[in-house]
Amino acid sequence: MSDPVSLLQELIRCPSVTPHDAGAQDILKARLQKIGFEIFDLPFGEGEHRILNFFARLGSGHPHFCFAGHTDVVPAGKNNWDSDPFSAELKDGVIYGRGACDMKGGIAAFISAVENFLEGHSEFSGSLSFLITGDEEGPGINGTVKVLEWMQKHNHIPDFCLVGEPTSAQVLGDIIKIGRRGSLNAVIEVEGTQGHVAYPHLADNPIHKLMTILTSLTQPVLDNGNEWFQPSSVQVTSIDVGNVVTNLIPGTATARINIRFNNLHSGTALKGWIATQCHRVAEYCKIDVAISGEAFLTEPGEEVRALCEAIHQVNQVKPRLDTGGGTSDARFISQYCAVAEFGLVGQTMHKVNEAVSILDLNQLTTIYQNVIEALFKE
Amino acid sequence: MSDPVSLLQELIRCPSVTPHDAGAQDILKARLQKIGFEIFDLPFGEGEHRILNFFARLGSGHPHFCFAGHTDVVPAGKNNWDSDPFSAELKDGVIYGRGACDMKGGIAAFISAVENFLEGHSEFSGSLSFLITGDEEGPGINGTVKVLEWMQKHNHIPDFCLVGEPTSAQVLGDIIKIGRRGSLNAVIEVEGTQGHVAYPHLADNPIHKLMTILTSLTQPVLDNGNEWFQPSSVQVTSIDVGNVVTNLIPGTATARINIRFNNLHSGTALKGWIATQCHRVAEYCKIDVAISGEAFLTEPGEEVRALCEAIHQVNQVKPRLDTGGGTSDARFISQYCAVAEFGLVGQTMHKVNEAVSILDLNQLTTIYQNVIEALFKE
Ligand SMILES: [Zn+2]
Ligand SMILES: [Zn+2]
Repeated sequence: MSDPVSLLQELIRCPSVTPHDAGAQDILKARLQKIGFEIFDLPFGEGEHRILNFFARLGSGHPHFCFAGHTDVVPAGKNNWDSDPFSAELKDGVIYGRGACDMKGGIAAFISAVENFLEGHSEFSGSLSFLITGDEEGPGINGTVKVLEWMQKHNHIPDFCLVGEPTSAQVLGDIIKIGRRGSLNAVIEVEGTQGHVAYPHLADNPIHKLMTILTSLTQPVLDNGNEWFQPSSVQVTSIDVGNVVTNLIPGTATARINIRFNNLHSGTALKGWIATQCHRVAEYCKIDVAISGEAFLTEPGEEVRALCEAIHQVNQVKPRLDTGGGTSDARFISQYCAVAEFGLVGQTMHKVNEAVSILDLNQLTTIYQNVIEALFKE
Repeated sequence: MSDPVSLLQELIRCPSVTPHDAGAQDILKARLQKIGFEIFDLPFGEGEHRILNFFARLGSGHPHFCFAGHTDVVPAGKNNWDSDPFSAELKDGVIYGRGACDMKGGIAAFISAVENFLEGHSEFSGSLSFLITGDEEGPGINGTVKVLEWMQKHNHIPDFCLVGEPTSAQVLGDIIKIGRRGSLNAVIEVEGTQGHVAYPHLADNPIHKLMTILTSLTQPVLDNGNEWFQPSSVQVTSIDVGNVVTNLIPGTATARINIRFNNLHSGTALKGWIATQCHRVAEYCKIDVAISGEAFLTEPGEEVRALCEAIHQVNQVKPRLDTGGGTSDARFISQYCAVAEFGLVGQTMHKVNEAVSILDLNQLTTIYQNVIEALFKE
C-alpha cells in the first residue's frame, strides 16, 4: 500500500510559496515517472514571473480521467504557528503545515490512489493524467490557463477532470463542487458638475445620480437561483468621493460593485445591463468592467455519481453537490471538459496551523482509489 | 462731498487678511471720531486668535440705524493678479484690489454717506452706529457674535441693521437679501458586518443600508418654498468607504450631507428627522449633526422700502428681495433685530482681480445716503 502521509510531509517541507516551487514538483514527477507516466514540463513566464507546471499522462485511450492540482501555497503569514509551517510536524494523528489541506494533501492522496490502483491493474484501457500548476494562489496567468492551451494543442484534453481543492466543509465528503458562480467587478465613475451647495440648481450632483444607478443595480432580484445555484447577488463594495468640503457639491463620484452570478447570466450580458442602467441616469459615466470568471456547471454524470458512492462507502457521508463559494482553476478547466472539485476539509486553509488528519488523508486516498476503480472497470 | 474712492483705496492698502487688521480699523475709527462717533474697541480672543472689532455710535435716541461690516479679507490666492492685490490700482474708472467689493467698498460708501448726511443734518433725532468686525472671513468666533453680546449688555441693540455685503448680482441694486436659509451638516456612519462578497448572507453590507438612508433623505420634497424662500435642498456632498479589495463587503460606510433649509424648518427638527430615517434602516449608526445657522427672515418694513426707493431713484433698478445664497453674519444679527443685506456687485468677490467701478461706488454711496435721509426725516 502506498502511504500518502510521508509524501505529504515531503511536499510540505518544500516552501513552495507562489511563485517558488522549492522542489515540490520534482518529487511528484519522480513518483509518477516511476509508475510509467510520461512527463511534460510546462514552465511559463519569464524572470520572476516564471512558474513551473507540468502535465503527466499514463495511457492514451479513453476514458481519460485527469486530476488537477496546485503545488504552490500562500505565505505562512505573520501569526505564530505552534510548529514551523514548513516542518510538517505530525502530532496526535494530525499533520501540520502550510499546504496541508490546500492542497498538497489532495495531491498526495491522489498519487497514492493511483499507485494503489496500478498495483492491481498494471493493464487498463483508458488513461490517467495530472495537470499540476504552481500558479493557483498567485495571479493565475502562467498556470492552468496556459497548460490547458498546451493540452488542447497536443490532444490531451480529458473526458473528465477532478480538481483536488479542499471542498469539504465540516467532514470529509460533505461537499462536492460541480460548478461555480461567475464573478464580475465594475468601477462606475459618474461625472456631474461641481458647485456650491447653496446653489444646487447650478450644480449637478454626481452622488445623487450614482445612488440612483446603484439602487437600480442592487434592488431588482436578478434571479431566484435554480436546482444547482443560489440566487445571483450584486454587492456595492465601495463608494468613494473624497470631498471634505462641506459646502461643495463634488464633480465626480465613484463606486465599485461585485456581482456573483449563476449560470442564468453571462458576464457579457451583465456588462451590457450595467452600462444600460448607468446611461439611463448619467450621460457622463466611465464604466470599467472586469469579468473574472463566467458561471459554469457540470451536470452530474457517471464520474460524480462514482465519487458520491465512493464517499458514502468510505465514511457514510452523503455529499451535497454545491456551486457556492469563491472561484478556483476549475473555471478555466470547465471551458474544455466536464469538471468537479473534491478534496479535504478546508477549515484551516490559508490560516495559521493549517492541518489535515491522517484519518482524513487515508480516507481521501481510498475514495480517490475507489473512483478510479469504478471509472476503469472492465 | 465726501469721496469714497480715496477711503476705499486707503482700506485696500491695509492687507487685512483674517486674522490680521493691518491698520484698516484705525482708518475707520479716525474718520468716525472726527464726525462725533463714540468708539468702543472690542478686541476678542487671545494670541494668534485675537481679532480686532469695534462698535461706534452717534446719538442715543431712536430710530437706531446700524451698519454692519467686516474689514478682514480672504487671501489674494496663488493666481496672478494684473496688479498688486493690495495696491488699490485705479484704471479706467475701476479700483482693483482684495476687498474692493467684499466689503471694504461697502464700508467706504457707508462712511461717505454718513459724512454727507451729517453735513446737512448736524442735529438729528435718533442714532447711527457701526458694527465692524475683523472675523467674518475667518472662524467667526471672536467677531460679530461677541460684539452683539456686548451691544446687548450695554443697551446698543439697534432697531434695524444693514449689512453691507456685496449682494448685487449683475447690476448694483438688483438684489437685497432679507433673510437667509439655514444650513446643517451631518456625517452619517453606518456599521455593518464585513464579509466575503461570495457569501453576502453572512455579511451585512453597510453601503446598501447607507444608500437606503440617503435615498430616504434626498428623495422627498421637504417643501415647495414660500413667498420669500426657495425650496429647501438636501445634498449628499460625499460618500466614503475606502475599500479597495474587490471581494470584500466592507464593515462601515460614511456619508456627508448638507441641508439648506428655509424658515419652514428648524435645524433641531431636521436633526431629529435625520436620526429617525437612519435608525429605521440601520441599527448601528453614528450621526454627527452641526447646525451652522438657522433660517431667518426680516419681513420687509419701512427700512427695506426706503432702500428699494433709493435704489430705484439712483439707478432705475427694481431690486428683488431675496433669501438665497450662502450664510453671512446677518444670521447672528437676526437674533437681535431686523436685518437686511445690501451692497456692491459681488461677481469678483474672493476671486483674482477683485474690483469695483467708481460709478458703482458713488451710486452705492448715494443710495446709502438717501436711505439715511429717509429714515431720519423729521
Ligand atoms: Zn487551493
Ligand atoms: Zn463679505
